[in-house]
Amino acid sequence: MILALAGGVGGAKLADGLARSLDPRELVIAVNTGDDFEHLGLRVSPDLDTVMYTLAGIANPVTGWGQAGESWAFMEALERLGGPGWFRLGDRDLATHVERTQRLGRGESLSQVTRGLCERLGVRQALVPMSDDPVPTRVRTEAGWLDFQHYFVREQCRPALGAIEYQGAESARPSAELRAALDSLELEGVVICPSNPYLSVAPILALPGVSHALQACRTVVAVSPIVGGEAIKGPAAKIMRELGAEPTALGIARYYARLVDILVIDRADAALVPEIEALGLRAVACDTIMRDAEGRARLARECISLVRGTRS
Amino acid sequence: MILALAGGVGGAKLADGLARSLDPRELVIAVNTGDDFEHLGLRVSPDLDTVMYTLAGIANPVTGWGQAGESWAFMEALERLGGPGWFRLGDRDLATHVERTQRLGRGESLSQVTRGLCERLGVRQALVPMSDDPVPTRVRTEAGWLDFQHYFVREQCRPALGAIEYQGAESARPSAELRAALDSLELEGVVICPSNPYLSVAPILALPGVSHALQACRTVVAVSPIVGGEAIKGPAAKIMRELGAEPTALGIARYYARLVDILVIDRADAALVPEIEALGLRAVACDTIMRDAEGRARLARECISLVRGTRS
Repeated sequence: MILALAGGVGGAKLADGLARSLDPRELVIAVNTGDDFEHLGLRVSPDLDTVMYTLAGIANPVTGWGQAGESWAFMEALERLGGPGWFRLGDRDLATHVERTQRLGRGESLSQVTRGLCERLGVRQALVPMSDDPVPTRVRTEAGWLDFQHYFVREQCRPALGAIEYQGAESARPSAELRAALDSLELEGVVICPSNPYLSVAPILALPGVSHALQACRTVVAVSPIVGGEAIKGPAAKIMRELGAEPTALGIARYYARLVDILVIDRADAALVPEIEALGLRAVACDTIMRDAEGRARLARECISLVRGTRS
Repeated sequence: MILALAGGVGGAKLADGLARSLDPRELVIAVNTGDDFEHLGLRVSPDLDTVMYTLAGIANPVTGWGQAGESWAFMEALERLGGPGWFRLGDRDLATHVERTQRLGRGESLSQVTRGLCERLGVRQALVPMSDDPVPTRVRTEAGWLDFQHYFVREQCRPALGAIEYQGAESARPSAELRAALDSLELEGVVICPSNPYLSVAPILALPGVSHALQACRTVVAVSPIVGGEAIKGPAAKIMRELGAEPTALGIARYYARLVDILVIDRADAALVPEIEALGLRAVACDTIMRDAEGRARLARECISLVRGTRS
């Protein structure tokens, strides 16, 4: 069994590739919930939804969030009534948040809710939140501390970032399914998807026991979200610069050096292999840009081979 | 100034006629909130919304509830996720309930919320809830006590009705604007719209002081919702039969006899005038079926004339 750690878009794509390449019982996908928040009285879990919609085949391929073929009648009507328009909730997407909020209100855990929604959408893989406890990410910017979605969506990541906090992470418990996967004798290895290291992966790693479990794990493979000095999508490179890290695959290698055995980088960055390997981890260069379903599956197979030691 | 008491469809139509015939400052419309309920964590006020949408010119003319040109992507997605489908919330309509719930949650009263929504939708008339306190209507049926919307929408009014309760009415306060209208020296008279007497008008009349104020009022005109022994829309005739009342304009006259000075009935029921007037109230027969905007305005002008005593 392989455990994937994922955030939003990049994580969802590789998770989808893994899902296409493994039996559902061979895969557990643990997803960041640090960007979860309450909006319009609804509990929104952006990364969980992006991965869930992607695996269900209903994700919007253009935006990287929300559903394909989405309509916006609700948002238009809400703005006409003076409601907030900065966080876009499509008509179909809204149903996910309403149903999630209702189920949480009836006492289900986020893990149970996610399982229920996945069943309904025909997602057969174990898609699990990193934790059932709230671990809201907050960022310190020039404008002071901001809740994550205020920074990420409302402010479009414009304010320079000085620090990140995973609030409550030290006392939150990893979800039962994440713990079970980390403790399982069946665990062959962990794949850290090409999600934002600071905003998507770090919240998972900040949970008690997760980093230790990774250090003890046979093989941990990470895929660099930075290619040629830029992020495929999102603010990863900008944030690395602001936090004083080098926004390259080498910077990613330094960030993950103590946790990861193998870093998968893009062919475009192959020249960085010696420097990365000087940090004490193995670097493998291949095509990491997932342009289509086959691209996702190819990168997934690469990661699976590396975990299983079947690639020379 | 004229005060109209209204429920849903029939009330909304006559309220619209009154709004077309009076200066906005000359009209206060107090609306039943006995059918308000919480659904999907949202506060839904069906009658207020029907009147508000009608005055805003965005009501669905076919269903009698919701908005014209509505879309249903949310409901479809919600049902796919296993959510309840019995109460239909259109994508645009949903924004009203989300915004109302948000504003109530911030401490606004239902009156304030309604004023805010009306401003946004360009409704210039004073549209006010009968009360800011909850007064949920419950009905006793063969199947036991049911919440109103469970009876009205989920069960489609099928179970025979044995009793109706306006829960909390005795301790609820009429809204400040309804009280002000009833106490106003400017009040020329009250128009009870052709809404369901038991389900839409009675909850308003059950509030402390309202019936007394109507008895003290110069002129109270009611329009019969029953024409030719049937309701124009809705279960009024069925309910009257079940509660042992005669489902005719005469039955309506008996129901309102102690409160109303003039009952407006349809021409089709003109033969009932002597029997109605034998009860001690005046009966006026005219065309009460509001097929279009002109029909609404014509009936409204009739009611205004009767209130003002300018009709012989």
